[in-house]
Amino acid sequence: MASKPKILTASSDPRCPEISADYADIMEQHFEIIHHKLFEQHPSKYQDIVAIIWICGPDIDEELLNKLPNVKIVATVSVGYDHLNIPLIRNRGIKLSHTPGVLNDAVAEMGLTLLLASARNLVRFAEEYKRGTYSEQVPVNDVTPQFSGSTLGIVGMGRIGYTLATRAMAFQVKILYNDILRRSTAEEKAIGATYFSNLNGMLPHCDFVIVLVNLTPETTPIMGEEQFKHMKKSAILVNCSRGPTVDQEALVKALKAGEIGGAALDVTTPEPLPNNHELFKMSNVILTPHISYQTRKASNGMMQLAVDNVLAALDGTDLLSEIPY
Amino acid sequence: MASKPKILTASSDPRCPEISADYADIMEQHFEIIHHKLFEQHPSKYQDIVAIIWICGPDIDEELLNKLPNVKIVATVSVGYDHLNIPLIRNRGIKLSHTPGVLNDAVAEMGLTLLLASARNLVRFAEEYKRGTYSEQVPVNDVTPQFSGSTLGIVGMGRIGYTLATRAMAFQVKILYNDILRRSTAEEKAIGATYFSNLNGMLPHCDFVIVLVNLTPETTPIMGEEQFKHMKKSAILVNCSRGPTVDQEALVKALKAGEIGGAALDVTTPEPLPNNHELFKMSNVILTPHISYQTRKASNGMMQLAVDNVLAALDGTDLLSEIPY
Repeated sequence: MASKPKILTASSDPRCPEISADYADIMEQHFEIIHHKLFEQHPSKYQDIVAIIWICGPDIDEELLNKLPNVKIVATVSVGYDHLNIPLIRNRGIKLSHTPGVLNDAVAEMGLTLLLASARNLVRFAEEYKRGTYSEQVPVNDVTPQFSGSTLGIVGMGRIGYTLATRAMAFQVKILYNDILRRSTAEEKAIGATYFSNLNGMLPHCDFVIVLVNLTPETTPIMGEEQFKHMKKSAILVNCSRGPTVDQEALVKALKAGEIGGAALDVTTPEPLPNNHELFKMSNVILTPHISYQTRKASNGMMQLAVDNVLAALDGTDLLSEIPY
Repeated sequence: MASKPKILTASSDPRCPEISADYADIMEQHFEIIHHKLFEQHPSKYQDIVAIIWICGPDIDEELLNKLPNVKIVATVSVGYDHLNIPLIRNRGIKLSHTPGVLNDAVAEMGLTLLLASARNLVRFAEEYKRGTYSEQVPVNDVTPQFSGSTLGIVGMGRIGYTLATRAMAFQVKILYNDILRRSTAEEKAIGATYFSNLNGMLPHCDFVIVLVNLTPETTPIMGEEQFKHMKKSAILVNCSRGPTVDQEALVKALKAGEIGGAALDVTTPEPLPNNHELFKMSNVILTPHISYQTRKASNGMMQLAVDNVLAALDGTDLLSEIPY
């Protein structure tokens, strides 16, 4: 029996956790895994490595590529690829793939989870209940906002924004959205959405605002001091995109000044956020450690897509999800 | 100008919080509020009270009714009415109303909130993040279940169950349900639901199970030791009905034995649950202090319906929501 092709991947890197058993299982269906740490000990032993699967490492620089003359593809297990030196890799004739699409459901679901949890003060109630705040009496008069029937502003109506909108619709939510690109009339109608070319014009109508834009120079940040001033005092901001899309200092000021009602952030600047940060002290803020894509289903789906891209590259067929030129 | 009719309601009762400003505003549109404590000081001064609006008091017994010869209606601001001595009140020709329907949206929304939050381990991640567990690194390998695309079992497909199902549908969830009554084929089709006359036959298929039955002798409890044994080891139980529908001791055992994957409970036995209870120590359990109906919208909607019932009784027209005979 022929041995399996070898792929290089990272583990035990200080910034990179152990490769999960799920990930190893998916890779080992087709490949022999060479961990970066092992590779570094005897690089010349592994000249037959044919692909790199990037999880949260290894760093791919000229020195590494010089030691790997037979690599056909770098497959990153991520949607973003700003961690890769694309020209360096492409100039050597190495293909590049990423894993878009697979995590739409998971991220859209996390967006809804944070919208609902912040509407209903879920984390605060759970914490206070555990602490004994309600040991005498349930908090009958502590009424909360309601997501159902509210008005939701979606900042960034890409694939994830659209998936989220189809779900928010079921809560009889009025959907407004802002994006550079406008959706077709049919697509707008299907989710009952109203387009605003001007973000500041949309914000005053919204009970909830969720940021789902890509991180680009134009969206760094897209929500700042000016935008918070346009929001309702009761409105809640949710961010499931990337930390720098929200001006975090301006957000803290807006929350302290009561200019907005609350926030739920799966992404921050930096990540992880130091746990002495003042956002952790605000009872109207929910913080989660960038877990929006982190369901078993989405996570394994990304790895499977990376593996399928490597198989395609080795077969010489079209990649399933090549990084755009 | 004629003075407003007087109504009796409770406040400052040790078991009953102050009446909220929202509630007072709604009642004072039409009535003069006489607080029970004030009434007790000079009962004879308030013979012209025409209605009792029950919030979480007063206790309505023979002695109280003897002091209130002109009461036409007892309007309870609640869906349940097991706290009222119905025959005693009706025998005096006093009408009785409650407030069903108004809180369907809020309770169904809380059900979805708990389903999503427990799927994504939201409360645990938020707590651990705040505590500093992820101060070095975000928890990349800590993958969670996903609600989207899962199989949901709804125990009790009444108004709230059906509202919840329409929302769960948007998450591409497969819906199974158990109830004494089967929905019409058209209703089942509209939510893509499959009926199980036998609860134990449904449970093995479910990734999530939510209890939304009324509390009756038959449902006390409906989920017990036997049912937990039929559930998947990974399945999550959510209860948004009443505490006694779930056998809490059996639930604790099932969680400890790993027979089920987790639970999210807005209702418990007793309420509030003492904060030294072992359920509070389980990281796969979310507990909230009976807040499912507690949005401003639902809460004010209930009070408005109670007031409208009182106005109907004083006008001699049909009540909007009479307690059934």
